[in-house]
Amino acid sequence: MGSRKNLVASARGDVEFDLAVTNAKLINVLTKEVQEVDIGISGERIALVAPRGKYTISAKQNIDAQRLYVCPGFIDGHVHNESSMCTPAQWAKVIVPRGTTTVCTDPHEIGNVLGLKGIRYLLDACKGLPLRYYVTVPSCIPAVPSVETAGATFTYIEVEEVLGWESVVAIAEAMDYPGAINQTGNITPIIETGHIHKVPIEGHAPGVVGRDLQAYLAATGPRSSDHESITAEEMLEKVRAGMMVYARASTFLDGTPEIAKALKEVVDVRMFGFCTDDILPHHLMEHGHLDHGIRHLIAHGVDPITAIQMATINVAQHFGLRGHGAVAPGWLADLLVLEDLENVAVKHVIADGQLVVEDGKRVVPIEEPVDALTENSVKLPQLSVEDFYLQAPGSDGQVTVNAMDMSQIFTKLVKIEVQSKSGRIQYPLPDKVSVASIIPRHGQGTPPSLAFVYNYPIGEGAIASTISHDSHNLAIIGTSPEDMLAAAKALQESKGGLVAVIKGKVVSLVPLPIAGLMSPLPVPEIAQKVRSFEESLPELGLPQVFPLHLIVMALPVIPEVSLTDKGLVDVATQEVISPFS
Amino acid sequence: MGSRKNLVASARGDVEFDLAVTNAKLINVLTKEVQEVDIGISGERIALVAPRGKYTISAKQNIDAQRLYVCPGFIDGHVHNESSMCTPAQWAKVIVPRGTTTVCTDPHEIGNVLGLKGIRYLLDACKGLPLRYYVTVPSCIPAVPSVETAGATFTYIEVEEVLGWESVVAIAEAMDYPGAINQTGNITPIIETGHIHKVPIEGHAPGVVGRDLQAYLAATGPRSSDHESITAEEMLEKVRAGMMVYARASTFLDGTPEIAKALKEVVDVRMFGFCTDDILPHHLMEHGHLDHGIRHLIAHGVDPITAIQMATINVAQHFGLRGHGAVAPGWLADLLVLEDLENVAVKHVIADGQLVVEDGKRVVPIEEPVDALTENSVKLPQLSVEDFYLQAPGSDGQVTVNAMDMSQIFTKLVKIEVQSKSGRIQYPLPDKVSVASIIPRHGQGTPPSLAFVYNYPIGEGAIASTISHDSHNLAIIGTSPEDMLAAAKALQESKGGLVAVIKGKVVSLVPLPIAGLMSPLPVPEIAQKVRSFEESLPELGLPQVFPLHLIVMALPVIPEVSLTDKGLVDVATQEVISPFS
Repeated sequence: MGSRKNLVASARGDVEFDLAVTNAKLINVLTKEVQEVDIGISGERIALVAPRGKYTISAKQNIDAQRLYVCPGFIDGHVHNESSMCTPAQWAKVIVPRGTTTVCTDPHEIGNVLGLKGIRYLLDACKGLPLRYYVTVPSCIPAVPSVETAGATFTYIEVEEVLGWESVVAIAEAMDYPGAINQTGNITPIIETGHIHKVPIEGHAPGVVGRDLQAYLAATGPRSSDHESITAEEMLEKVRAGMMVYARASTFLDGTPEIAKALKEVVDVRMFGFCTDDILPHHLMEHGHLDHGIRHLIAHGVDPITAIQMATINVAQHFGLRGHGAVAPGWLADLLVLEDLENVAVKHVIADGQLVVEDGKRVVPIEEPVDALTENSVKLPQLSVEDFYLQAPGSDGQVTVNAMDMSQIFTKLVKIEVQSKSGRIQYPLPDKVSVASIIPRHGQGTPPSLAFVYNYPIGEGAIASTISHDSHNLAIIGTSPEDMLAAAKALQESKGGLVAVIKGKVVSLVPLPIAGLMSPLPVPEIAQKVRSFEESLPELGLPQVFPLHLIVMALPVIPEVSLTDKGLVDVATQEVISPFS
Repeated sequence: MGSRKNLVASARGDVEFDLAVTNAKLINVLTKEVQEVDIGISGERIALVAPRGKYTISAKQNIDAQRLYVCPGFIDGHVHNESSMCTPAQWAKVIVPRGTTTVCTDPHEIGNVLGLKGIRYLLDACKGLPLRYYVTVPSCIPAVPSVETAGATFTYIEVEEVLGWESVVAIAEAMDYPGAINQTGNITPIIETGHIHKVPIEGHAPGVVGRDLQAYLAATGPRSSDHESITAEEMLEKVRAGMMVYARASTFLDGTPEIAKALKEVVDVRMFGFCTDDILPHHLMEHGHLDHGIRHLIAHGVDPITAIQMATINVAQHFGLRGHGAVAPGWLADLLVLEDLENVAVKHVIADGQLVVEDGKRVVPIEEPVDALTENSVKLPQLSVEDFYLQAPGSDGQVTVNAMDMSQIFTKLVKIEVQSKSGRIQYPLPDKVSVASIIPRHGQGTPPSLAFVYNYPIGEGAIASTISHDSHNLAIIGTSPEDMLAAAKALQESKGGLVAVIKGKVVSLVPLPIAGLMSPLPVPEIAQKVRSFEESLPELGLPQVFPLHLIVMALPVIPEVSLTDKGLVDVATQEVISPFS
């Protein structure tokens, strides 16, 4: 009891503040105003926000904001830590200087690989960081149980267990929207569990509109959200229906132009939030984090204070994060001094009442609170080169087969011709044809699945990844069985990661020993490895970009055909089909 | 599990709705827009809000809104049920047809009389009503322990117990702001208990601004509120400091003109709420409830949608009331059809998914869920007429005495002359002089306290009340000891209430047998009794209005002097002073 004695005494003026920020132009996100103020902080909280110069401000440490703008620390409404490929501590070193002081993470990837143990690891690995790290419980592990195998299965029982852990604030993206709409599957009792625990049921409803949207919100409302909307029209339909819509600024998608259009249509913006979803390590280094998205939104003509409200108080209110998202007495002392409002360049960061970034440089040490969880999660079956030969029993000569056409990110199911001899597909493959494989890596013990790929620009060698959404088996696309085997072996040895192989030799490797998804290295180092990996891809005939096709080809929810550990999946029917016609 | 199956099926269109409201102009409080929609309801929740005419709406019961406005049910952010002088069930019969579907009550009055038992009674007496009845835990029982005696004392232990009960959502008005600011007294651990339970600490800070306000919010923030601000300037200082400010429209105060001024200064209105605080039964009947306040605010030039946001979503978000305050799929089906937006005349009310008011008339029965708590709470000491003679030992002839000047609602401490004989004050008293008494009624066993009153326009007889804020002892102002005794006896017999006596005879009586504060009668009947009581007051020389002086003269927090059961209190020093100079 009485833990606020010092805080209140400093507000009264009876003891000095621990930290003060004077001469600030405060962006008041509660009233949408700018005020000239002095700010006093004691311990982890703001004690006083007073008109500039009104009181003598006496503090152990003082920052003169020099009439620059001050705003609350940014809050990321939905983000997968795993996409940064680094631990929470290494991530904090990069995103806190960018102004992100709170993250609502969805440990969907590590959950799919390691189950509860993976989520527990992240919650342990974020302790003591100058970053408020909340967790939303993955609701779709695996995403589609009937056609893929993950490292874990979450029913409402696992979800309920995690909801009892500290810092767990919501059910994460309920991707199985057909299940929610039809009240079937694992997702229905998981959503119900969220309602019982009175947490938001975060949504994931790309293109879901009309009566489907109403049914989805009847299931997940009243505190649902979406970060998958494509058009302003879809976004508006969702906010009007009581759904928080996040502006998403990820490595893969920039939702800010359409959000900017949607914002023009409404007077009250409280239902709009901000999130990054997935940002790769080298993009973090090059572009930043939420600050990057906020810059984009402002560049699209949105008032900076609105953009900042979306990335602060709106997200805090959505999740019910007490004391987060505004700069006011009694609230948590997470705040930023910005160089300006156009570029949102972060000069100083105060997190939990501590000056952690000064003039863009981190001034406090960040240590790993626990050892990285590097037990090998790449549990492959015994493999030989034979596993990568497609067998077409009884066929000889030209065979018509099913292939995944990868001209676009949404694959097409096409028919192509290949040569077979004594029931075995012959190499070299015809022009524009390669082979994809998903190797079970969660100890399933089943053999690799195989399928033909068409129009993927790989000319020789193989690339492979243990990042393979969402079940994160080992995904390979290659031109020869030998190179595919070599790629698999390399990743087994590195405990996971990304690899490029030519003629049996590893030409580049990104080791990701934590669940095959993340590295214990600092972000600049892992970013450099990813860049080097991208730079090696032209040697295989591939463009020098992150191989998105490779890491999403196993997603059985992206049209039109995917390859899981169970085989080639027709996404529309959710049935496994033969590689052969 | 699966409790939403029917709701979601109706949203999909696979089963009919229980209730539909078609052809509505929906006030969307989330985006601040008006939409033409059809609304489908299943069970207690909204299933669908779709563009008008887009889908065939099939429902067991259909209401054609005839293009009238529809909005969420009103939410009262701070109200004392006791001021209506009736039970929750009788209250619901009157306020639900006025559009109030949710109340955040503060059982401060019954708590002061009966302690936990009183709060428990109200929580039992609201079960099953078409009114969502939340409780905030009184934080100041008694208001000022050092100078008054209530029927109970709440420390953080009692507060913590009540926080564990169902439907308890906040710590109620932390009136002891000096205690909060100085981190002393009972209030400090009570506030801390609220923070531990993560509930709002509702504030009560009349005129508290500047550094005092900062300290008060350092103690009570981040989710504090205020309903006591007088000027727009004070209101703005508070919302900017992160405090929800309620527009208060009570029987005694209309805060809407200043709120209207404050609203013109800010762009974002999310920190403004609405409350009624205290509305007497006859005012409920004549003017209404929150609807009355909303009308006033609109009359002062505030956009109706802003006013409705303040009385719906803003209050719901402040308290974190899940699914309250908006009309959207998955949210609770509390909604109103309004005749228009100027008079906010409520035509139909749907509460908890049920049509409860149609064309202004209640169409569902409302029963008392439990017997009224009518055990006699008026536990007076043995009384005789001698108890009401002021004794001035050793004096004879003219004596100078202290008196409470009641020319204004804020009393003044004045010196007056009275006649004494053998140490006993002589009757009749001089012109403009009367006598006040507070009789302990909580079984304290102490004798009545007595003091002189100046400039209270009573000419003969006595008036008395067991409503006597905040400790609710028995308050009397009279012109003769005999009439004061008769008034006390009448209220002892009626188990409390309001009474007027002339020459030993009761001329009007409002029996309030529930804690001496409330009646089991329907509101129209209790309202009529209060009106008759007011009508009788001119016979005593008093104006025909509710005798506010009588019921607040014991408040030791209203300047300049008050009379508690412990005697005459100098409010500034919080010391008991002698009635004699």
